[in-house]
Formats: sequence, C-alpha cells, structure tokens
Amino acid sequence: MKRNKHKIAIVGASGFTGSELTRLLASHPEVEIKHITSESHAGKAFSELHPQFLNIVDLTLEKADIIDTADLDIIFLALPHGVSMEFVGRWKDKNAKIIDLSGDFRLRSPAVYEAWYQKKHSFQEGFSNAVYGLPELTGEKVKSSQLIANPGCYPTASILSVAPLFANKLVENDTLIIDAKSGLTGAGIKASDTTHFSNVNENFKPYGIGSHRHTIEIEEQLSTLCEEGVTVQFTPHLLPVDRGILVTSYAKPKNEIDSEQLRKVYDDFYQEHPFIRIRDKAPSLKDVRGSHYCDIYPFWDSRTKRIISIAVIDNLLKGAASEAVHNMNLMLGIDQQTGLKQIPLKP
Amino acid sequence: MKRNKHKIAIVGASGFTGSELTRLLASHPEVEIKHITSESHAGKAFSELHPQFLNIVDLTLEKADIIDTADLDIIFLALPHGVSMEFVGRWKDKNAKIIDLSGDFRLRSPAVYEAWYQKKHSFQEGFSNAVYGLPELTGEKVKSSQLIANPGCYPTASILSVAPLFANKLVENDTLIIDAKSGLTGAGIKASDTTHFSNVNENFKPYGIGSHRHTIEIEEQLSTLCEEGVTVQFTPHLLPVDRGILVTSYAKPKNEIDSEQLRKVYDDFYQEHPFIRIRDKAPSLKDVRGSHYCDIYPFWDSRTKRIISIAVIDNLLKGAASEAVHNMNLMLGIDQQTGLKQIPLKP
Amino acid sequence: MKRNKHKIAIVGASGFTGSELTRLLASHPEVEIKHITSESHAGKAFSELHPQFLNIVDLTLEKADIIDTADLDIIFLALPHGVSMEFVGRWKDKNAKIIDLSGDFRLRSPAVYEAWYQKKHSFQEGFSNAVYGLPELTGEKVKSSQLIANPGCYPTASILSVAPLFANKLVENDTLIIDAKSGLTGAGIKASDTTHFSNVNENFKPYGIGSHRHTIEIEEQLSTLCEEGVTVQFTPHLLPVDRGILVTSYAKPKNEIDSEQLRKVYDDFYQEHPFIRIRDKAPSLKDVRGSHYCDIYPFWDSRTKRIISIAVIDNLLKGAASEAVHNMNLMLGIDQQTGLKQIPLKP
Amino acid sequence: MKRNKHKIAIVGASGFTGSELTRLLASHPEVEIKHITSESHAGKAFSELHPQFLNIVDLTLEKADIIDTADLDIIFLALPHGVSMEFVGRWKDKNAKIIDLSGDFRLRSPAVYEAWYQKKHSFQEGFSNAVYGLPELTGEKVKSSQLIANPGCYPTASILSVAPLFANKLVENDTLIIDAKSGLTGAGIKASDTTHFSNVNENFKPYGIGSHRHTIEIEEQLSTLCEEGVTVQFTPHLLPVDRGILVTSYAKPKNEIDSEQLRKVYDDFYQEHPFIRIRDKAPSLKDVRGSHYCDIYPFWDSRTKRIISIAVIDNLLKGAASEAVHNMNLMLGIDQQTGLKQIPLKP
Repeated sequence: MKRNKHKIAIVGASGFTGSELTRLLASHPEVEIKHITSESHAGKAFSELHPQFLNIVDLTLEKADIIDTADLDIIFLALPHGVSMEFVGRWKDKNAKIIDLSGDFRLRSPAVYEAWYQKKHSFQEGFSNAVYGLPELTGEKVKSSQLIANPGCYPTASILSVAPLFANKLVENDTLIIDAKSGLTGAGIKASDTTHFSNVNENFKPYGIGSHRHTIEIEEQLSTLCEEGVTVQFTPHLLPVDRGILVTSYAKPKNEIDSEQLRKVYDDFYQEHPFIRIRDKAPSLKDVRGSHYCDIYPFWDSRTKRIISIAVIDNLLKGAASEAVHNMNLMLGIDQQTGLKQIPLKP
Repeated sequence: MKRNKHKIAIVGASGFTGSELTRLLASHPEVEIKHITSESHAGKAFSELHPQFLNIVDLTLEKADIIDTADLDIIFLALPHGVSMEFVGRWKDKNAKIIDLSGDFRLRSPAVYEAWYQKKHSFQEGFSNAVYGLPELTGEKVKSSQLIANPGCYPTASILSVAPLFANKLVENDTLIIDAKSGLTGAGIKASDTTHFSNVNENFKPYGIGSHRHTIEIEEQLSTLCEEGVTVQFTPHLLPVDRGILVTSYAKPKNEIDSEQLRKVYDDFYQEHPFIRIRDKAPSLKDVRGSHYCDIYPFWDSRTKRIISIAVIDNLLKGAASEAVHNMNLMLGIDQQTGLKQIPLKP
Repeated sequence: MKRNKHKIAIVGASGFTGSELTRLLASHPEVEIKHITSESHAGKAFSELHPQFLNIVDLTLEKADIIDTADLDIIFLALPHGVSMEFVGRWKDKNAKIIDLSGDFRLRSPAVYEAWYQKKHSFQEGFSNAVYGLPELTGEKVKSSQLIANPGCYPTASILSVAPLFANKLVENDTLIIDAKSGLTGAGIKASDTTHFSNVNENFKPYGIGSHRHTIEIEEQLSTLCEEGVTVQFTPHLLPVDRGILVTSYAKPKNEIDSEQLRKVYDDFYQEHPFIRIRDKAPSLKDVRGSHYCDIYPFWDSRTKRIISIAVIDNLLKGAASEAVHNMNLMLGIDQQTGLKQIPLKP
Repeated sequence: MKRNKHKIAIVGASGFTGSELTRLLASHPEVEIKHITSESHAGKAFSELHPQFLNIVDLTLEKADIIDTADLDIIFLALPHGVSMEFVGRWKDKNAKIIDLSGDFRLRSPAVYEAWYQKKHSFQEGFSNAVYGLPELTGEKVKSSQLIANPGCYPTASILSVAPLFANKLVENDTLIIDAKSGLTGAGIKASDTTHFSNVNENFKPYGIGSHRHTIEIEEQLSTLCEEGVTVQFTPHLLPVDRGILVTSYAKPKNEIDSEQLRKVYDDFYQEHPFIRIRDKAPSLKDVRGSHYCDIYPFWDSRTKRIISIAVIDNLLKGAASEAVHNMNLMLGIDQQTGLKQIPLKP
C-alpha cells in the first residue's frame, strides 16, 4: 500500500527562497504541497509569477492567513525578518511544525536579536523552543523540534568551514577572520540600487563591514561548539554572480599542526555527513551550484602558522531552501538525503 | 522483483556534453552506467576531471576501444565531429544501439556532409539507417532505430520554433530568417581565443554568417516537413552566458493569419509533447535552464504581416544531453519523461 | 590670448546619460560646465551621486528651473521622455541652443509622436525647428540648428547599418529586418524588475516585439534617405552586458550585387566620416566600448541573395552622450572630433 | 616653437598590458610611439591584432631585436617573467631608460627571485640599479632611475591599502592578512583552462593559497616602510570580471586608535598624491575602472580592535600600464598627471 505523503505549506513564495523551496518540494517523493502563499500575488497561479514552473506547479497562490493549517505536517516560512515572528506566534498551538527561514529565531535571546536587528521582537517566547537547524551540528535536536530556525546563508558556510576546529578547541577564539563573498541572490528579489544590474555586473565590493547581522549568529554557534566566547571578524562582499557563497576563513591554531593532521580533523568530524565533501584543492562556486553540497578545503600554511579554510555552498540551497528540506527530512523521520541528491549544475 | 536496469556507456566524457549526459544518467532510475571513456584522461576518476561529481560518480575513465560492449544496451557517443563516425563503423554489428551526439549522421547523405563539413566521411553506409532524433518530430522512427543522429543545438531550437508553420505549409519556403543566439558552452570545453573569458564577457558578436553548418541541417528537416525545398538565412551569435539558446525566427505567411489562429497551430502541433511549452509572452533563457523544456512564443505582427517565433532551450540539455536521453527512453520503450523532469534552475 | 570656453549646462545628471555627458564634457578642451542639475539630488555634490567623479567633478547639483541660462551657449537635456518637452518649451526664447537627448522631438510630427509614445505632446511647435542630429547623415543641418533631437540608441546603430543601401536605393523598402541586441544600460538607472541583476545576468530575451518606439524613428529616417515609405521589422533584445548595441540587419537588394561592390558602397558613403569604421570581419561590442566609433561589417550572402549588415556602437556614447557632444561640436563650429577621440576600452 | 616629443618603444604588444600601454601612449601629448613589437605577430598591423585600434594605431608590429634603440628615450617591456631580463641585459648600455612591467627586477635580490619564481635569473647585475616604481612611495627615486621595476598588480593595491599604517609603524608586523580579489585579465591573454569562460563566469575561487609570488613583493615593500621584517598572509581570488582588483586588508594596531585618527593618517600620507582618493564608504571596482585612481577606505572596527582597509584599482592600469606611464612621466621630468586623467568608466 502506498504511504500517505506528508502535507506541507510554503508561506511566502514570491521570493527566491520560496521559489527554490517549491522547486525542491515539488520533486520530493514523500511530501505534497498543499498551499503556497503570497500576500501581494494571491489569486495568481504560482507559475504566472515564476514562469519556469509553467505546466509543473500551477497551484493558485493564497493569502497566508486563510490557509487551513489543520492537516499540515510542516509549514515553511519564507518571509522577511520581522514578519516570520508574527506567523510563528499566531500558529504556535497548531499541530504543524514550523521551519522558519528568516532570522527571527536564530539568535540566543530576544535581547541579542534586538541589539543586532535593531527591532523589537514580538514573539519572545518562541526563543525557548526554537532549534538552530544546521543538520551537521544540531541534527539530533532538529529531529524532535517543533520550531526550526533555519540558518543564514553566510553562517552556514562560515560555521561549517571551521566547526571541526572549534569543536576540537584547536584554535584561538578571538583571532578568527572570515572574509565572505556572496552571489547577488542573497540580496533578495526586490528591485533596488543594490540589485541593479549595472551596479553588480563587472563590479565587486564589501558591505556591512564590522556590523553585519550574521556576525553574531556565527559567534554564537562557534561559542556553543568550543564552550567559550568567540569573537569573529566577518566581512561580506557582493559577487557579480547569481548563486553561491565562498568563505575564506583565517584561524590561528593554539598549537602547531600539520596538513595531514588538519585533514584528519575535518574527515573525522564530517564522516557521517554525506553533504559535506572535504576537498584536496580549493573548490569553486560552480562545484556545488544547484546542489545541497558544502565543499571544504582546509589548508595549513606552515610559513605563517595559520589555518585557512575555504568553504563553498549554493546560498539559495544549502544556505536556505535545501537546508530547510534537510531539516524537514529529519523532523519527519525519513532518510535525510531524500529529495536532495541533485548533482551540481556545472557549467 | 526488481527490474534489471539497462546498461549504458558514455564514450567521450571530458567535454560538457559528456559531463551532462553523466549527470542525467547517474540519476536516471532505469539505467546503469557501465563505462565512461576519455582517451586523454583514461585511468583517472571521472570526478577528478569533473570535481562536482565527487562522491557521486567516481567511476574510472577508460579508453573507448577496450570497453566490453557485449552486454550494453545503449552507447552514447559524445565525441567531436569526424571521430564519431569511426566508432559507429567499428561497432556497427554490436547489439548495442548507438546515440551519436556529433554531426556525423545528421544530414541526408555523405555528399551533403562533405560539402558542408569539408571533410571526407569514413562510414558512408551509416547514413542508410541513421534516424534524426528530434523526438517531437521523429519520435516514432526513433523507437525502432539502431543509430540515432542526435540533433545539433541550434537546429533543435530553430526547427521547433517554426515546425508547426512548415508542417502546415503556412509560410513561404525561401524567406525564413533565423537570428540565433547561443551561450558559450556551445563552443565546447577546449581553451581557445574564442572561449577566453575576456573575449566573451561583456561582449557579443555574430559568427559563421552565411556559412554555419547548422544551416543545412535546419533546411533539410524543414524541407521534410513541408515537402518542398527550403532556404534558410541562419545567423548565429555568441552570448556572454554559459547556457542557453534563443532563436528569433522571422517567417512570411502565404496567407494572412491572426494571433488566435497562430496560437492554435502551435497548441495543436505540440499537444502530445510535454516538453514543449507554448508561452503567452516572450520566454528568456533562464526559463528553461537546466531542464529539457523548449519554450516557444509565436507572435503575429499585423503591421508587417510577418510571423515572429521565439524559442529557448538549454543548449547542453534539450540541445544535446537530455535530447539524447529522451531518444534513449523512446528506444528502450520506457516512459519518455523518465529522468527528464528537472525543473528549470532560475535564477 | 586664450580663447574663452563655451558655457554649457547638463540638465538631468542622475542617470547614465547625464553622467556620461559630464564625463565627456569635463574633459572637453573647448567647453566649461556651468551647471549640472538633478531635481531629486539638488544640493548634493555631483560626485556624491557618482563617486567615480570624486576630486574630478565636485560641482553642486542644482534644480533645473533656477539655473541662470543667460550666458549659456548649449543646454543638454538628459531627461525622460515627456519631461524634456516642458523645458524646451520654457527655454524656447533663450539664446542657448538645446540638445535634447530624449525622444520628444525625434519624430516627424506631434501626431506620429502621440501614436507611438501614447502621450500628448505639450510643445508641438518645437517640431518645426527641431533637427534630427545624426551627424553622418544630417550634420549640415545640425550646424545651424537651435534645437537638436539627439537620436535614440537603437536607431543610431540601425540607421547607420543600412544608410548607404537606402541612400543609394539599392534595397527593397518593405523587407528590412533589424534584429537588435542592447546592453542593460539602455534600460536606464532606475531599479525595476527589468534591471534586477538576477533577471538580466546569464539571461537573454526579446521585448517590445512589433511595437518598440524606435521602429518608427528608423522608418522615418530611412524613408528620408530613399525618398519612399519604408517598413521595418525591428526586434530589440536585452543582453547581459552593461554597454553596447549590436544590430544584425537583413536587407533584400533590388538587383544582385557582389561583395566588392557592396564594400565600395559603404566605403564611399562614409568616406568623410572618421567615426564610422568599415570592417573586414564582424565586429564585437568591445571593439567600440567607451568610444564614439560605429563599426560596420556589410556582408553579401550569394546563396540567399541577401545583404546582412552588422553594426556596433556603445549605446551610452555613440547612441547618446558622445553623439550629443558631436552635435555640439558641429553647432559651435569647432573640429567635430574634439573631445571624442577616446580609444575603445578593451577588454 | 613646438617641443619635440619623447620617443618610446613598446616591446611585447600582443597582451593586455601592451595593448593598454599603447592606448595610453597613443593619446599622450608628450610622447611619440616609434616601435611596437611582437615576436609572434611581426609584420601585421597592430590594429589587425587589436581591432579596436583600427584607423587609430595602425603601426606595423616589429621583432624586438631589430628595432633601432638609438634615438629612444624610454623602452617599455611588456613581456613575460623570465623574458624581460634578457632584454634588460641586452640593452643595458643603451641611452634609453627601461620600464620593465614583468616581475624580473621587483624583488630585493636574485636569491629571493629564484626562491619565489623557481627560475634562474640571467641578468643578476640588474638588481643593483633597478628601482621599484610605485610613485606614491618611491617617486623620488624613480625620477633619476635608468631601470624601473613596475610593481605587480596585487602588490600595488595591497601596499597602498596599508602603507600609511606601516610607514607610521602603527600596526603589528606579523598579523597582516590581505584577502585579494582580481578580475580575469590578471591571468593574461593566453587561452587556458584558467581563462576559459565557463570556468570563470558565474564562478569564484581562491588560488595560490600560501604561495603566490606577490606575497614576497608585498612583504619587502612593507618591510622597507616600517624598517622591520613583515610577514603577510596573502590570498588571491579570481573574480568573474574583466578588470579590477579589490583588496580587503586586516591589520592589528599596536595601540588602540579611533576612526578620526585613522582617517587623518591616510589623508596626511597621501596628501600630495592626486591619484589616491580616500573614501568615506567602501569603494567598488567600477569606481576606478579605466582610470589611474586607487580608492581607499580605511575602517576602524572598535568591537574587534582591528583596522580593515579596502583598496581598489584597475589592475591593467594602476596595476600595470598607467603605473608605467606615471613612472615615465617622472623619469621624463614632465607633470606626473600628463596623459593619466581619464575619468573612470562606469557603468
């Protein structure tokens, strides 16, 4: 007998993350999309908004507050920061588990949130049961969670690039520098000077120097790993490409190490995690584009006594949509790789 | 009981087409890749050559002439023009059916081949049983064929853009102009001045004006459809993008038509063909990128009395690798959509 | 004794055209920029808006209606369609000559304007003395004009690509097809879905099929040349590059011609025009980027009996700002090449 | 009476640097190009090789060893590393001064050269009189030099980004990290896997981690400034753009500083240098593209107690060709800004 599929809803499908979630979930063998919502486009077909889905996903977009949540197993929130918290509060007593792709529940406390997001948090009790959903690090907790805070794109790549070092307490906790570079889709679908082609194309620049919100998210997770306070210098830059994040992380080891030992630390740490690939050479963005992989190249510079770790992900997938599906798989108790085996699209 | 999978080989896997074939076939539920060959990289792992496949396809590359063809069902030839014909000749008596992605058997006769490819053909008898494998037009013949000439990328988009017009004898046969634009991957993986980033990036130019080999391929197929000689003005241009072909076809109708009639001609013609999508607006390259779809927008210009038809495909997929898999599905008698349901990757 | 410099104003400097005008005029040895205006940024330094001008052009932006026009020789209007006409009307009795870069006075009559721009024209008397300022064709008239309608970017490339054919009445007047491709800056500086990086990058599409306003501008100018009505099929496409237009023009000769004759027609027609370069091979966008050149490659296809002419320009320069400076030079009676000798920037 | 122009030769004009030198020098009011050489293209017109120069620079390319050096004032060597040294040796007794754009004489000694370039040096005596030609730092020495070692592109941006800090001995000399990103033209004009469009476009990756030759060049120059040994962690990355380098430099101050003090350090240091612009916000590549400017944004992060300095240049100009012209101006005793006032080309 055929197993019933799990029922899911995607709330907020007009942006890139919502569109990518829909792409993955429409092909996922164990779930059925019951609702896709968009406040500004309700009534239109999803494929009218995103014509690449014509004849594939033609569901009608609904308004979020009228969907029937009664029989849903999972609700994905692909909403802006500050909007997600409203829906988490509203639906807190429903049966459906929530995977929130915004930054609203990623940090340790409302106070930290308000300091870095400069915004009052309207559903503070959510912090008590939210689980930070980075499967390679927190997968066990994810399995039994009701509310997942899906990690930010930069934090996913940044944390994974150095997690083995911090978990093994091998590096200093106040000299880490993460120089990060992201494709433009990280800036969202909304038209602005930032996203104007002529400002991005053939161009490159840093932004948010010393103040980007993802800094604290990275610091908190690395602190949890090494059980000490961690200070990170995090500098994001904008690449003239659609997809992909590459981070170049510079860490100072407490004691000297060698290349072979370093490699073993990474191999051991990620041994059970099929979506992490430890590489022999520096990876490039396209090695993982369109996939759930995170490729990592740890390098020991014996001249400067510094560890450099390069990590690449697809920011819309491992840094957002496929990470959410990975979390969903864990929450539903199905094989974690289900629906996530897309081979990178290169070139 | 589990059905046995069909056994296939991919001959020539160092290029883009071979790599894309491998990507599709590694995820295809009904086939098993037995051999992947590369003359220049034999002995290496496939994933060493194409690192995006690490931990996914790590098969060792072999030399083509030593693979055991005895138990193979299908052999894909992803080889340069002029090399394919050698292998077709060598393996003509094997059980395995051959799908040739080169241009060696696409034309009507050795004489036409030699005129347009300026090269002697070494296996002329192949022309007698080769079938031009454009499933939407020649699918029935493909099913029982032993040798498929997989269409060129430009001809796929070009022919599909106007096939309903020629099949219905609606347009003049000597005024068709096809202004075509292709992404750089059409030029292949080999480093050259043509593929140097600085010559392509932020640039655009036509090439092969009046003399491109795909001209005759288009003319022959359209002639077959309308049962008359057809002359085509075909002008290809090089776009600074990786993937995608867009053709702008200008046809002069024999009799006046209107928008609704025109749309109906296309809807009717492609009614049974799930990978052709007739659009209400002009499509863009990314609407089909990473997929097997061909999106077509037919437009009637009542001011100039001309039909303009826009078609887009992913040149490496519908224009090469996924077209080959589509042909394979037909030859193996399995559902034509198997392994080809990838949703376009956008953005 | 040092000659006094001519005094000019640039009205509307927040966009790409205004910025390019400023770049050219700031380096022009015979003029002095007295005013630069921007309604939305008045009070700021020009270099605050366009930081590439820091320490070079730090003039304060003014509101257009308060500048003193009394001692100005030339006023450039780099304003949107529909706004220019207001200023032309307001300043019609001033001494300053006006070069209008908008479409407001390019067409033959207010009626034609209103039909193609779907907008009421508020200064209809302007049409009586406006001169279409394409120096290679109308340079003599430009010299004595008070009001120049600076050509559109597409019309500049399109008209120049075939002007020798129409001026010599060599081609049919109702079968011309111009398939045009433009960089994104043609869409302007305003953020919109059209200009969002993710919609442009790695993408390509046609737009305005059968209805683009530049169609009538091209038709009118070619009609003037051949002294007959001309119908043009004009299809613009959007390229994922910043700058450049390439047009592929398809013309049917009345009588057969050969390659040598064709070349001579072009050489003769443009003999006195230093910014037109007749090429032996198809040019590419970067061959003229950052310069005032228009490179043209006329090709005779003896198989199809058709002439194909390829022309490339920098849309912001020869298609807008440098064209305006060229017109200015003619109006001021100085050497036409002054300030326009920039060598193309490639790569 | 008109002053005689200085006579120069460009040796090695087939690459990007040679082509850019020619572009600048052809427009330079005080010099005359007497010879342009290319071993592989001798006999062709320069504009046949670089068609953007058609009708502008049509000089015939010569072989280097046959040019008459007798009346030359300056010879530019735009040759590969290892080839330049041969010509410097051969022409050491000529009157002409030499500006060498290769890496052959940039380092302190033949021994250092051989360690980092893994190549025997064939003209070791050249080191004794070669001057490292970074005008803002070594301009006085340049004026009287016979042999200029023109800086590398990365070192130009890297050194300028932190020179005020090291010259004032404000920062630690063993914790500097320079995370650098360059456009593809830095890889040269030769076709290779590295320069293949499909490997660069939509991609990004680091290379030469821990071992790039420019590391030692940066270390030596900073050591000279602070009169102590300096160790630099230098990591270059390849951007999918034609032109531009952006460096993100992380320095640890010996004593705490504040934003205002930091800004003053930079303003004071570069006060006399018109091509350095200290910015209030992070610059982007296009702010300097096509120009000789280096824009720098120094930032004090009070949370991490670290100085971050962002610098951008056009790698082919300030990082190569215009730097060479700047050195030439100093050597010829003419105004240093002559021929270098191009305003950045943006967008």
